[in-house]
Amino acid sequence: MTQKKPSLAIGMIGHAFMGAAHSQAWRTAPHFFDLPLDPAMRVVCGRDPARTAAAAERLGWAESATSWREVIGRDDVDLVDICTPGDTHAEIAIAALEAGKHVLCEKPLANTVAEAEEMASAADRAAVHGVRAMVGFTYRRVPAIVLARRLVADGRLGEIRHVRAHYLQDWLADPDAPLSWRLDKDQAGSGALGDIGAHVVDLTQFVLGEQIREVSGQLETFVKERPVASGAAGLTGGTTGSERGAVTVDDAAVFLARFAGGALGVFEATRFATGRKNAIRIEINGAKGSLSFDFEDMNVLHFHDASADDLEAGFRRIVVTEPGHPYIAAWWPPGHGLGYEHGFTHQVVDLIGALGAGEEPTPTFADGLRVQRVLAAVETSSDTRSWQEIPA
Amino acid sequence: MTQKKPSLAIGMIGHAFMGAAHSQAWRTAPHFFDLPLDPAMRVVCGRDPARTAAAAERLGWAESATSWREVIGRDDVDLVDICTPGDTHAEIAIAALEAGKHVLCEKPLANTVAEAEEMASAADRAAVHGVRAMVGFTYRRVPAIVLARRLVADGRLGEIRHVRAHYLQDWLADPDAPLSWRLDKDQAGSGALGDIGAHVVDLTQFVLGEQIREVSGQLETFVKERPVASGAAGLTGGTTGSERGAVTVDDAAVFLARFAGGALGVFEATRFATGRKNAIRIEINGAKGSLSFDFEDMNVLHFHDASADDLEAGFRRIVVTEPGHPYIAAWWPPGHGLGYEHGFTHQVVDLIGALGAGEEPTPTFADGLRVQRVLAAVETSSDTRSWQEIPA
Amino acid sequence: MTQKKPSLAIGMIGHAFMGAAHSQAWRTAPHFFDLPLDPAMRVVCGRDPARTAAAAERLGWAESATSWREVIGRDDVDLVDICTPGDTHAEIAIAALEAGKHVLCEKPLANTVAEAEEMASAADRAAVHGVRAMVGFTYRRVPAIVLARRLVADGRLGEIRHVRAHYLQDWLADPDAPLSWRLDKDQAGSGALGDIGAHVVDLTQFVLGEQIREVSGQLETFVKERPVASGAAGLTGGTTGSERGAVTVDDAAVFLARFAGGALGVFEATRFATGRKNAIRIEINGAKGSLSFDFEDMNVLHFHDASADDLEAGFRRIVVTEPGHPYIAAWWPPGHGLGYEHGFTHQVVDLIGALGAGEEPTPTFADGLRVQRVLAAVETSSDTRSWQEIPA
Amino acid sequence: MTQKKPSLAIGMIGHAFMGAAHSQAWRTAPHFFDLPLDPAMRVVCGRDPARTAAAAERLGWAESATSWREVIGRDDVDLVDICTPGDTHAEIAIAALEAGKHVLCEKPLANTVAEAEEMASAADRAAVHGVRAMVGFTYRRVPAIVLARRLVADGRLGEIRHVRAHYLQDWLADPDAPLSWRLDKDQAGSGALGDIGAHVVDLTQFVLGEQIREVSGQLETFVKERPVASGAAGLTGGTTGSERGAVTVDDAAVFLARFAGGALGVFEATRFATGRKNAIRIEINGAKGSLSFDFEDMNVLHFHDASADDLEAGFRRIVVTEPGHPYIAAWWPPGHGLGYEHGFTHQVVDLIGALGAGEEPTPTFADGLRVQRVLAAVETSSDTRSWQEIPA
Repeated sequence: MTQKKPSLAIGMIGHAFMGAAHSQAWRTAPHFFDLPLDPAMRVVCGRDPARTAAAAERLGWAESATSWREVIGRDDVDLVDICTPGDTHAEIAIAALEAGKHVLCEKPLANTVAEAEEMASAADRAAVHGVRAMVGFTYRRVPAIVLARRLVADGRLGEIRHVRAHYLQDWLADPDAPLSWRLDKDQAGSGALGDIGAHVVDLTQFVLGEQIREVSGQLETFVKERPVASGAAGLTGGTTGSERGAVTVDDAAVFLARFAGGALGVFEATRFATGRKNAIRIEINGAKGSLSFDFEDMNVLHFHDASADDLEAGFRRIVVTEPGHPYIAAWWPPGHGLGYEHGFTHQVVDLIGALGAGEEPTPTFADGLRVQRVLAAVETSSDTRSWQEIPA
Repeated sequence: MTQKKPSLAIGMIGHAFMGAAHSQAWRTAPHFFDLPLDPAMRVVCGRDPARTAAAAERLGWAESATSWREVIGRDDVDLVDICTPGDTHAEIAIAALEAGKHVLCEKPLANTVAEAEEMASAADRAAVHGVRAMVGFTYRRVPAIVLARRLVADGRLGEIRHVRAHYLQDWLADPDAPLSWRLDKDQAGSGALGDIGAHVVDLTQFVLGEQIREVSGQLETFVKERPVASGAAGLTGGTTGSERGAVTVDDAAVFLARFAGGALGVFEATRFATGRKNAIRIEINGAKGSLSFDFEDMNVLHFHDASADDLEAGFRRIVVTEPGHPYIAAWWPPGHGLGYEHGFTHQVVDLIGALGAGEEPTPTFADGLRVQRVLAAVETSSDTRSWQEIPA
Repeated sequence: MTQKKPSLAIGMIGHAFMGAAHSQAWRTAPHFFDLPLDPAMRVVCGRDPARTAAAAERLGWAESATSWREVIGRDDVDLVDICTPGDTHAEIAIAALEAGKHVLCEKPLANTVAEAEEMASAADRAAVHGVRAMVGFTYRRVPAIVLARRLVADGRLGEIRHVRAHYLQDWLADPDAPLSWRLDKDQAGSGALGDIGAHVVDLTQFVLGEQIREVSGQLETFVKERPVASGAAGLTGGTTGSERGAVTVDDAAVFLARFAGGALGVFEATRFATGRKNAIRIEINGAKGSLSFDFEDMNVLHFHDASADDLEAGFRRIVVTEPGHPYIAAWWPPGHGLGYEHGFTHQVVDLIGALGAGEEPTPTFADGLRVQRVLAAVETSSDTRSWQEIPA
Repeated sequence: MTQKKPSLAIGMIGHAFMGAAHSQAWRTAPHFFDLPLDPAMRVVCGRDPARTAAAAERLGWAESATSWREVIGRDDVDLVDICTPGDTHAEIAIAALEAGKHVLCEKPLANTVAEAEEMASAADRAAVHGVRAMVGFTYRRVPAIVLARRLVADGRLGEIRHVRAHYLQDWLADPDAPLSWRLDKDQAGSGALGDIGAHVVDLTQFVLGEQIREVSGQLETFVKERPVASGAAGLTGGTTGSERGAVTVDDAAVFLARFAGGALGVFEATRFATGRKNAIRIEINGAKGSLSFDFEDMNVLHFHDASADDLEAGFRRIVVTEPGHPYIAAWWPPGHGLGYEHGFTHQVVDLIGALGAGEEPTPTFADGLRVQRVLAAVETSSDTRSWQEIPA
């Protein structure tokens, strides 16, 4: 440690919920993991100067700025971390890549397939020059999910027959919950589908190592109008008055899917599952075994090995906190579980690791585009009441 | 008890798995419940004289017979209990009703909508003469399910937004599991869809008190050929040789649904969910509350009351064994749980209760027909890759 | 089945809660299991002629009687099934054995060690003449418990280090729950200790195949006086007036224990565990593995195999409903769980099996005596605030 | 935030497991909570200069030092954070307090009651001068535990009857796991009892708001000798040779307890619970309700409200991640759970909050002394095989 590591200077665009999570990751990763580059939290960018300056202090950034273009133009910024709403991703990311900055972009990659395609192209062009782009599907970094992927890849489940995946929240179940940018199609692109459905699409494709080939789905907006929030907006907005505005995104999305290998998928993403707060549930059945995961108990993976003696077979509750489990050696002793934010730290660790090794970090923008195509196919399917194929 | 109750003489057709379950119910009900009629286990009917005679002795029937027509023609039989494969239901049930016998018919009501319609018509005609017909969706009689229905009916969940319902088994996950009549479309009508999917269709409609209005589904036969079993066939067949035969039914069925009240449904029925033995899982989200049930823990209902203080809200694990819970007062003290077979006993109790009161027992053949129409719509949807409406 | 089996005629003494459970077992066993003897429900005995006659009809006994001495004197009774309170066990059981009748006696074997010793002696004397005695610890017959015992016996847990065993009920948590014979030391012998603590003492000794060697315990009566119930008494009594009577037994018992092989035990039996209805929880930790059981989920055994790869190790949720699991082949397909009453049926099956084979049924009266000695040692320990050894 | 907050400069003694956890807390707290003082990570102290310097860099301390006396003598250190083994706590803490430094001392407070008494006296003397001392029972800061305490304090459980508390680990279940300082009585004071039993003693007293009055316990060392680890020692040591050394502390501790209010307690602390990694389980039964907690699912508290309608009563699974739950507003949206390390951050938040407000932080050294007295009473009880009272 006597030799100084090369630095990696970060400029972060946006400082709300995701900005806070990313900041905690940048701050924390170097203290637990041996990284090839030393991240420096150079500058955070937001619209409001005073609020951005306060965020810089609170979140640990050296400076604040109000122009993202200025940030990506700075020589002392190596990587741009995009934590803004989806409608701004394409413009910022493409510009940053063209400016020779590595990019970490929050999911969903973009609000439309067209934008995502442009972003993937930009990423390809940038890669030629060793400039890297990654999309932020952090739940891939939950140790139990990585273990799940390994078990599937090792053939422990055999041929996969069923995937059932839910992402259940309930923060809109109350019809008087206020409007926020997340309920505005212009900013958010879609509702539950893109915000949380994107995660289970990515997670299941990641765990299976296979793409979804076709879908048949249905979107629904249960509550068409909501009170307009006045003042600052957090996840659930500020105070509300008598004014009501239209909800222009879906409250819930359900769809059937067929994976490339033939497995049947059943997906559900909703903000109306009363009593479920952040339940990402994935269950996979194969010819030789099964897996079950629920983010409400995120340090656990349930694994059924059908090759075991019938009389002793059963779903094993694997507490994924052993030193040999993914990412765990850097943290705490067995049974001392991780939390939500650790996925973001692992994301930063993997990203810096790839940059240090000169490798392409994953998920790539091309991976993000694939997710976007699935989401778009679900929307079209809902509109046309038909099955839709996803281009490979 | 000094006054002798009127008798209700039963003739049962079929004596395999369902015959054994029904027999236990007929034997047990009078010892725990105060019934208006005294069931007499008059005669059991099967094809093979010796095996049927043995079944009569083992299951507690006074006599055995080999002709179902003879059984329904007997003056000393009041009710015909049909436990045969689905392809025989219509003929036997209609003949029995026309002969003036009450009928209890196993589910699914029939193998086709046409047959089910004829059966429902026959039931209507018979009802004029006080002859009653009931279809055997026994899971309706699980105390937790009845409690669930009450909570929904009392408005405790508010407007229903989501229904997710799975019936997961795994006895065909092994590609070398043998053929049985349940895998033959001619006898069984369909596979997972009709055998177990029928249950979750009926259960969700029962709990919600609403019909499914439209569906979009997909059937799949993962393993197209299987070893032919030689000799007697139980649920998983006898020994097998090198001969292989075609599986002509679905291994799994998945479908989206829309209920009359607007709720989105996601359904899954499969015999390939490795590690899940008989997992009937139903989860319902409403604006004011949610319910969750899993038959693998059948004495429990989980209920989330969203009207509770946020800081204390949570899914309550209600152990449905209190004296005030449905059916429970007749059984054991709190916490001394019931098992699978008790649903059959409750079925007999409800049936005899309705007959004694001169009322129509439920589910009626019309209810069975409605389930059949949903199943048929799922099949058509799968064939045509389109949404299908269910006639009201 | 053409050859008539020898008969085993039963006379049952007592017809309350346990009488109902035993009756269901006698009625049911022959219909599911192939028994060497054919049980005949000859006569049930109670104090009140009318109520006993009604019980005979309801429970399926051919006759009723009011004198247990008369019952044990009958030539047409082969086995006496004792379902009365504990203070009567010794007298009836010894007389029955001396009259040459086999005896099945409810637990706890007796209210005092002295009585239990006399009963064990009587059983020894009777055994010389092929007359058998068994004590009714039915929870031994839960399939998951038998599987647990097998895993321990097969060395799968290695050396046993820890046993924690709870029997938690809550029917006395309300200070206004009425008095019943179960709260009267003269009739019941003890409270939670003998009624339910006895079960976990027997179960843990059964699963480990080892005796408890010493104990240090504490009994407590939280509510010293309760309303006197007027009229008939069920488990929770009838209506109550203003009169209050003393509770003369323990409400709860806790004790530490040391098993013969060195394992540390922690036991708890209480009727004051608000919200726990019949939670029999047993957890065993060995050098090579662990087991966990909870009767609130009685068809499941959790097994941790520490010899597995660390990264895949975890408690397996074994659903104990496979055909190869204890008792299960006689019942239903996998996943179609059993209930509380099945333990009684299995008890009858094992008893008749042993009688048919001319073998000693277990648990013997000597086993019951051993449990009684542990209970007595706990009481003495509580009185003297000291560790007490249990004579071998 | 424009006005500069006063600073609180920290010197931390020790940089192993606890040092890493404390460092993460000091680093993280200011970024999520609005603190009255701004913690500065001034200096970390360890024996080995090179390793301590590396730790300083890795953990984020400005400087490193090798003499704790020098650290407590520095003018630019305001608070000494003691993360060393228990045998050093008294000397360092007393010296630091006398030097006018606030002290945060890891638990258990000391290795003997005598030391703990001296420390409590020193804390009392220091308090006169506004110098504060706190002991680090971090599990008090788990949001579910704080919620539990509130429910008890609000009378929601009524009179408390039962407490059952386990702290189960398994890292010594393997007889070949190596010796470490934690197995050496001179350094560690005791084994499972002081290391993890201390936590459940403190937690139950904290949640009940009551002291334990008397205990009867048993300590056990299952494996008397272990391989000597060579080289650096983590929680489970380095590599081992053929040399074996004596284990001089307990592997497991079990004890009965009586709380001041009359509740019966049953406690267990062990490192031999194969398959349990860090299972802190607390269950409390009161006349009006019950609570259940398991650290393996740390974001959840189960609460049974017995005042609810019997037919709807059940343990509620409260996901303790709502904004109104303790500490949560500073973190993430509902359902985005916390992990092990967050307890340490909350500890720092509460400590700085108290210092800023000029109040006494809790748990005080007097609280730590009370825990120590319970632990000592358990040891004496085990040695003398008798009940031991705890001085008030």
